[in-house]
Amino acid sequence: MRNFLSDKCVGLKPSGIRKFFDVVSEMPDAISLGVGEPDFDTPWHIREEGIYSLERGRTFYTSNAGLKELKVEVCRYLKRRCGLSYDADRDVMITVGGSEAIDMALRAMLNPGDEVLIPQPSYVSYEPCCLLADGVPVTIELKEEDQFRLKPQQLLAAITERTKILVLPFPNNPTGGIMEQADLEAIAKVLIEKDIFVVSDEIYSELTYGQDHVSIASLPGMKERTIVINGFSKAYAMTGWRLGYAAGPSEIIQQMIKIHQYAIMCAPTTSQYAAVEAMRNGDEDVARMREAYDGRRRYLLHAMEEMKLKCFEPKGAFYIFPNISRFGMSSEEFANRLLQEEKVAVVPGTAFGDCGEGFIRISYAYSLEDLKEAIGRVARFVGRLDQGERVC
Amino acid sequence: MRNFLSDKCVGLKPSGIRKFFDVVSEMPDAISLGVGEPDFDTPWHIREEGIYSLERGRTFYTSNAGLKELKVEVCRYLKRRCGLSYDADRDVMITVGGSEAIDMALRAMLNPGDEVLIPQPSYVSYEPCCLLADGVPVTIELKEEDQFRLKPQQLLAAITERTKILVLPFPNNPTGGIMEQADLEAIAKVLIEKDIFVVSDEIYSELTYGQDHVSIASLPGMKERTIVINGFSKAYAMTGWRLGYAAGPSEIIQQMIKIHQYAIMCAPTTSQYAAVEAMRNGDEDVARMREAYDGRRRYLLHAMEEMKLKCFEPKGAFYIFPNISRFGMSSEEFANRLLQEEKVAVVPGTAFGDCGEGFIRISYAYSLEDLKEAIGRVARFVGRLDQGERVC
Repeated sequence: MRNFLSDKCVGLKPSGIRKFFDVVSEMPDAISLGVGEPDFDTPWHIREEGIYSLERGRTFYTSNAGLKELKVEVCRYLKRRCGLSYDADRDVMITVGGSEAIDMALRAMLNPGDEVLIPQPSYVSYEPCCLLADGVPVTIELKEEDQFRLKPQQLLAAITERTKILVLPFPNNPTGGIMEQADLEAIAKVLIEKDIFVVSDEIYSELTYGQDHVSIASLPGMKERTIVINGFSKAYAMTGWRLGYAAGPSEIIQQMIKIHQYAIMCAPTTSQYAAVEAMRNGDEDVARMREAYDGRRRYLLHAMEEMKLKCFEPKGAFYIFPNISRFGMSSEEFANRLLQEEKVAVVPGTAFGDCGEGFIRISYAYSLEDLKEAIGRVARFVGRLDQGERVC
Repeated sequence: MRNFLSDKCVGLKPSGIRKFFDVVSEMPDAISLGVGEPDFDTPWHIREEGIYSLERGRTFYTSNAGLKELKVEVCRYLKRRCGLSYDADRDVMITVGGSEAIDMALRAMLNPGDEVLIPQPSYVSYEPCCLLADGVPVTIELKEEDQFRLKPQQLLAAITERTKILVLPFPNNPTGGIMEQADLEAIAKVLIEKDIFVVSDEIYSELTYGQDHVSIASLPGMKERTIVINGFSKAYAMTGWRLGYAAGPSEIIQQMIKIHQYAIMCAPTTSQYAAVEAMRNGDEDVARMREAYDGRRRYLLHAMEEMKLKCFEPKGAFYIFPNISRFGMSSEEFANRLLQEEKVAVVPGTAFGDCGEGFIRISYAYSLEDLKEAIGRVARFVGRLDQGERVC
């Protein structure tokens, strides 16, 4: 029998996060600080709306682009939070999480050979989705000394004749870095001048500390060249509901809906009804969870300082990204030894791109109690490494 | 600003069903016989399990391939109903409806230029998903005189050096045609000899009348060259839950999971818990709905006979596909006039491929009461056409 597999698909690396957690799942006494999803249950009133829709027998397809009332709420939200005006009938689609929106955006826009700029370290899906859509991923290495922000000169240096899209992954997973208004303005100038489109993954937009998130689409001249991707997973602790959305120029959204219609049909109906409730009455939940994350963030930064682990202060998402290069071992070796010796799972920075070497990602989507237990173990491990260094 | 769209995507035709129903949605007094989803609510005990999972706060991601207990139930089901043995850990994945499974299977297997045989009339997604995955769709025209079954000589005639996959869409939407064991055996012989893979879309497998569905994967030598696609939408009236699955050789399923992990993450969690209940305790519901569909099917066949509309007897799914060619107008014209003159919406056969010309699809996923009202109108319309013919 011949080989029936697609060469392109076979060539994709499996996720580095996944590889690591296959090991963790075999260790019953390990504490994981690795997962990228909220530890909170979805707020009760949102779940209740899902339950109500099931009781009422709302178990049918919605229209391909999503429930009208949810699209209207998405538009209201984007107006209220980002100052963005979209037409619910033309410019918005409801997707199976932010993940599907990324895949659909790249499939709707890329021709073979088109280059996609992907700042790294960043979420693991951009590069494979780009490759699957016949695009050419071009990495831009974000730097710790720049607070992991994208700099206009880096962007300029990466642009070629073939560049079509910039993926803008802020607030950033795994670094926790954000882009402020002035940072975005400098980037926008280059993008407009060079006629580049943006896929802006703003899934962590509600989780910023000390300042509000700014969407690049809200800058002059940018709305017409940006697909804003967001969703309910992180802000409302709704990961399992698989619900996200994309907003942007209608001619692109309509192409995305065409693929979505054939490949997915529609997002889950119960989730869509629950999400309407989330957008109408969920602000307090978001604020409450943000506050909890912020408390943990500050605890962790303090703990890193105490164990003399250099750590950039993250202003968004729910990760810290400490620099472990002073121990002279690779991120993977550090993570492996920490797991073996202290049974604490963190993700090597290299899971998010080669330039993540020298860093580890610690998620604080865990209770403060769990974090304290885990960090005690990390401190013991780091202490032993420091001891060893002094002995050598 | 330049054109940011993918040529491939722009080149895809929008669904003919959708185009038609955009018109219907503007007509408040129209009766639709057009939709391809069960008119039943999801059975209560299945919804209750979804509700229970929400009450318990099971709102987190499942593993990429799906909940272990659901994969185990899928394997038990395939064993019990089709005599197929799969390994729940390696050979099965849970998807966002059958739709996603079709897309993932083609993306995991096609290299540019690979030919995919698509018997038509059939569901609207195969061709666009093939094109998006850089495959070359090759149509095989199913014939009314063959009861819309795929014949081995047709298959042989369509195979070239580039043929990689046969999509096998039975029980068939829109014709209601099925493939019996002997039909499949003749096809399997060709597939094995020519080393062709099968993507078998068995989403209507529980809706057959008079005989049980046979999966081509259950024939000798076929399991290793077949991806079985199925789901919960049609059998359990669970369309809005967006839940399906794929089972097949692990080396292909693992590649599909890799794409799924990046592009989707996992299927909706609530739906997965509800589906476990559906598989464990849903047989009676399926039998009850099947019986109701069968009653409607027999009513419609009788009504077609009465109005002298030639109609092949469908043995599966929930559609009839009457031949309207004797009126000397196109399917689209017939459907448009029926909609305008009698406010009944049916789908032109051409929405499912050019060879659907001369036919219309009538769905019987409607109550007998609605069907009777609608068919009364169709009879009036046909009567007028016949009258006109006699006058001319």
